[in-house]
Amino acid sequence: MKIGLCQINPIIGKIDYNKSKILSGYKKGIEQGVDLVILPELALCGYPPQDLVEKEEFRSAVINATIEIAEQTKNVGLIFGTISEEFDNIGTGVYNSAVLCFDGKIQFVQHKTLLPNYDVFDEVRYFESAKDVHIFKFKNEKLGISICEDIWNDADYWKQRLYEKDPVQRLVDKGSTVLINISASPYHYGRRAERTEMLSVLTKTNQLPLAYVSCVGGQTDLVFDGASLCLDAKGNLVKIGKYFQEDFFIFDTDEKYKKIKTIEGSYGEEILNALVLGLKDYATKSGFKKALVGLSGGIDSAIVTYIAVQAFGKENVHVVMMPSEFSSLGSIKDSEKLIENLGITSETISIQSVFEEFKKVLAPSFNQRKNDVTEENIQSRIRGVLLMALSNKFGYLLCTTGNKSEMAVGYATLYGDMNGAVGVIADIYKTEVYDLANYINRNEEIIPQEIIAKAPSAELSPNQKDEDSLPPYEVLDKILELYLEEYKEFEAISEIIGDQKLVIRILNLVDRNEFKRNQAAPALRVTKKAFGYGRRFPIVQGWRT
Amino acid sequence: MKIGLCQINPIIGKIDYNKSKILSGYKKGIEQGVDLVILPELALCGYPPQDLVEKEEFRSAVINATIEIAEQTKNVGLIFGTISEEFDNIGTGVYNSAVLCFDGKIQFVQHKTLLPNYDVFDEVRYFESAKDVHIFKFKNEKLGISICEDIWNDADYWKQRLYEKDPVQRLVDKGSTVLINISASPYHYGRRAERTEMLSVLTKTNQLPLAYVSCVGGQTDLVFDGASLCLDAKGNLVKIGKYFQEDFFIFDTDEKYKKIKTIEGSYGEEILNALVLGLKDYATKSGFKKALVGLSGGIDSAIVTYIAVQAFGKENVHVVMMPSEFSSLGSIKDSEKLIENLGITSETISIQSVFEEFKKVLAPSFNQRKNDVTEENIQSRIRGVLLMALSNKFGYLLCTTGNKSEMAVGYATLYGDMNGAVGVIADIYKTEVYDLANYINRNEEIIPQEIIAKAPSAELSPNQKDEDSLPPYEVLDKILELYLEEYKEFEAISEIIGDQKLVIRILNLVDRNEFKRNQAAPALRVTKKAFGYGRRFPIVQGWRT
Repeated sequence: MKIGLCQINPIIGKIDYNKSKILSGYKKGIEQGVDLVILPELALCGYPPQDLVEKEEFRSAVINATIEIAEQTKNVGLIFGTISEEFDNIGTGVYNSAVLCFDGKIQFVQHKTLLPNYDVFDEVRYFESAKDVHIFKFKNEKLGISICEDIWNDADYWKQRLYEKDPVQRLVDKGSTVLINISASPYHYGRRAERTEMLSVLTKTNQLPLAYVSCVGGQTDLVFDGASLCLDAKGNLVKIGKYFQEDFFIFDTDEKYKKIKTIEGSYGEEILNALVLGLKDYATKSGFKKALVGLSGGIDSAIVTYIAVQAFGKENVHVVMMPSEFSSLGSIKDSEKLIENLGITSETISIQSVFEEFKKVLAPSFNQRKNDVTEENIQSRIRGVLLMALSNKFGYLLCTTGNKSEMAVGYATLYGDMNGAVGVIADIYKTEVYDLANYINRNEEIIPQEIIAKAPSAELSPNQKDEDSLPPYEVLDKILELYLEEYKEFEAISEIIGDQKLVIRILNLVDRNEFKRNQAAPALRVTKKAFGYGRRFPIVQGWRT
Repeated sequence: MKIGLCQINPIIGKIDYNKSKILSGYKKGIEQGVDLVILPELALCGYPPQDLVEKEEFRSAVINATIEIAEQTKNVGLIFGTISEEFDNIGTGVYNSAVLCFDGKIQFVQHKTLLPNYDVFDEVRYFESAKDVHIFKFKNEKLGISICEDIWNDADYWKQRLYEKDPVQRLVDKGSTVLINISASPYHYGRRAERTEMLSVLTKTNQLPLAYVSCVGGQTDLVFDGASLCLDAKGNLVKIGKYFQEDFFIFDTDEKYKKIKTIEGSYGEEILNALVLGLKDYATKSGFKKALVGLSGGIDSAIVTYIAVQAFGKENVHVVMMPSEFSSLGSIKDSEKLIENLGITSETISIQSVFEEFKKVLAPSFNQRKNDVTEENIQSRIRGVLLMALSNKFGYLLCTTGNKSEMAVGYATLYGDMNGAVGVIADIYKTEVYDLANYINRNEEIIPQEIIAKAPSAELSPNQKDEDSLPPYEVLDKILELYLEEYKEFEAISEIIGDQKLVIRILNLVDRNEFKRNQAAPALRVTKKAFGYGRRFPIVQGWRT
C-alpha cells in the first residue's frame, strides 16, 4: 500500500485554513498515485485546541468541515484527525478521532483511547476515551489506526506503563496488516530518538509496518518538529519527514527500503531551528510582521536578536539600547558590533533622565532610605515601559530575553525585563545559551566574542555581576536541571552537588518565584519540562525542602 | 454515632502546620465526647497541591505525617484526607485518599474514585482512581466513606452524568448506615445551595444520614467557604458549619434535629466575605502584612481598598493617588473622602513629570506621530512602576484593581494597572462592583456617593469615558456572562442581545485578549468560571466567531 504522509502546520481554530491544507495534501496524494493520504492528530482544528473544544459552535464547525472534506474524496483514502461527538447520558460525548474518508463519505471513525493528562497535556479535560478499537479493511490491507498516545503504552517497551489498556496491541491482535498512527507530539531535544526507538521495538515485535505522521509548527509555547516516521516490519526506520517544516512523502509498505538512522542534529542546530520556528509561528499566526528586542550588551539579548533575525528577516528586526549610569562602555560597543553583524536597525534611548525623575518623585516617600533592589527594578521597568511604547506605537512583537536559569531563580524583573509576548530562550539554561552562541559562530563571528567572553551582569548597580548573588552558572544549571527536568529532590541533588546549603537556597528560590513565572510570557518549550503550562505549582504554599 | 466535623483552613504544602490542625481537631473531638472526628479532603497537604504531588519527597513527607497522626489516635476514630501510594507496574500509584485511624493505627483507607478534571480541577494529572470502594464497620455503624467528587454523580439527581461509576451508590448497596464525605469544594456564588439540594436528594433517596465536611480558606485564587453540611436520612439539612471561617461542630446521627435552610447571604455579603478571605489568606500564607492600592478616584480601586481594609486592618493599608493632566479634580477629592472614611494612610505622587520625561526621550523615535493608545499605556505603566517601587521598598502586597469586564475585553494595561500580586475583583463584573458598593454603604456612606455616581473613566486622555469605546456596562456584562459563564455562543447571544455586530465585536475582544490575561495576576474566583487556571484558551489561534 502506498501511503502519502502529509506533515502540515495547522493554525489552531482556523478551520478553513486547515481544511485547505488537508485537501491540498489529499490532492497531492492523488497526483502522486498513492492509495491513502494520512494527516496528523486534530489536523483540522490544530493541536492543542484547549478550551475551544468546550465551545459547541466550535465543535460544530469542525464536524461540518470534516463532512465537507469527506464529500470531496474519491477512491483514494484520506485519514486525518478531527473532533467527533457521540452523545449518551454519561460523559461529554466528545472524542479526539481519526476519520477515514473515501468515495465522498466518512467510512470509518476511530476514537483515541489513551488520553495524555500530564505535563502540557490535558486531554481528559476535553475528550472521552474510545470504548474499543477496530481494524478497517482497505485495498487488501487491514488498517490498524491509532492516535498519538495510543501507541505509547507498549508493554514490550515500557517497564512502567501509564495505562491499563493497550489499543495498538489490540489492533495487532485483531489482525492489522499495516499500522497507522496520527500524532501531534511536541518537540523537545532528544524526543525524536526516543520516538524512533519505541516505535522500532513495537514494529519489530509485531512484525508490522507503521506509518506515523506528525504535525509541525509553533503553537503558542509548543513547538512541533514534524519528522514523521515510517518503519518496516523488522523495526527499521525507513523514511523520515523533514524537520521543522511541512512535508509530503510516500511510504510504500510493499517496497523494500534501506534502513536509515534518525538524524538528531547537534544541540545548537536543533534548538535554534526549534526556537526560530516557534517565534516565527507565534508572530505570523498572531499577525505580527516585525520584532523588537531590547539589547543590553549581554549574551541573552544577543542570541534572541539573532533568532529574531532568522524568524522575521533582518529587515524586520529593530533593537533598542537603553543605557544607564551603570552600563559599561563595552555594552554599547559590543551591541553595535552585533547590530552591524546582523544588519538590523537600532536606536539608543538613555534611561538616565527618566530614572532621575522617578527617584525625584519617589524621594518624599522613600525618605532617605538606602538604595536596594527597588532602584534596580525601577531601571529594568523603565526599559520595559520604553520597549512597550515602541511596540505599541509601531506594532512590533516584543521578544522577551530571559533565560531558564534566571526564570528559575527569579533573577528577572516582573513588569521590567520580563515584558514581552514570548519568552524566546526561557527554556534554555544560561550555560546552554553559550552553546547556542558558539554554534551560531561556528563559521564566522556573528555574536561578538566580547559578548560571549564577558561575565554576565544585569548592570543595574555599580560593578554588579550575576555571580555576586548566584553560584557559577555551571553549578546553578546543574542543580536546576536535576530539580526541574530530572525530578530529583533535595537529598539526591545535595549528594551530587555536595553543598546542602547551596542546594536548599536554590530550590527555595525556585519554589518562591512561582508568582513571577505565573505572570511571565509563554516560554518556547524545547526541554521535557519547561516553565509554563506543563508545570503547575501553587503560588501560595508552605512546602519547603 | 456522634461525629465531630472539623472544618480547617490548611496551608498547601505546610505539612506540620496542617498536621497540628488535624490533631487539635481530634483532641477537641475527644474532649467533646464524639465517636469520630472527620476532616476535609487532602487536609494534610492542603488542596489543591498541584504538581507538589509529583515530588517524591513531598509525598513521603505527607505519608510519614499521616502515620505520625495515626500513632496519636486512641479509641475515637479520625478520618482525614491525605495522599497515599500503592505501586504496581501500571499508572502512577498515587491516590487521593481518606484514612480512618484509631488505636494508634491507620485502620482503613478509601481512595477517591471520581477524579474531577474540568475547570480548575486537574486530578487525573496526579491521582489514580480507586479500583473499588468498601464500607467499614465502626462502633455499630457501617461507614460509607467517599471523597468530594465521588458524591457528585448521583443518577437520581443528574440528567447528564460525568462518570460511569457511582461509588456512593455502591457504598449504599454494600450496606452503609452512615455516609461520610470529605471535601474540598471551591466556592462560587450559589454553589452552597446547589450542594445542599444535590445532597438532599441523595440522602432522601437512600434514607441515610450524611456528614459532609469541607475545608475553608483562600488558596491562591481559590476560595473555600466552609459550610460543612449534615443531612438526616430524610434529606433534611440539619447542621451547617460556619461560612468563610474555621469551625468544629457535632452531628449525632441518632439525634432528631430540626430541619434548617442553607442560608445564602445576599450577593454583597457573600462575595465580600469571599474576597476578604481570599485576599487575607493570599497575604498571610505568603508572608505579607501590609497592602498597597493605587487609588484612581474610580469605583474599582475604592472597593478594592475597602476589601483590603477588611483583610489587613486599616492600619495596614496604604494608598497612593497618582494624578496626571487628565485626572479630574473630583478624582482626588473623592479619593480623599474615601481615605478619611476608611481611616487609612495615603500619599500623592504626580506622574506628570515622569510622563513628560518619557515623552521627551521617546520623541526622536516617535517622530511627530500622533498620540494614540501608546501614550495612555505609558501613563498607566508609570503608575505601575511607582506602585511596584513602593511595594519593593516597603514590603506591601500590591492589590490589583481590574474588574472582570475589563479583563474580559482587554480594557487594562499590561505592566500598568494590571500590576500586582492578586486580582481582588477580577472575577466581578463592573455592574456587580456597583452592587458591592451599595452593599458596603447599606448603613452609612463608606464609598463616597460621588465615586458611585460618576461615569467610569480610565482618565488617560482628555474627557475619556469607558463608554466611548465600550457599550454600556449593563449590556457588556450581559454579553460577557452569557459567553463566559453560560457557555452561550454567538448565535444564542445575538438573539438575546439583538445586535450581532456588537456581540461579534465583544466576543472577538474577549478571544483576542487571552495574551493579556495570560500574564495577569491570579484572580480571586467567586463565579463558576473565572479567568485564570480554570479557563484555558490558546493564546495564538485563529478561531473567530
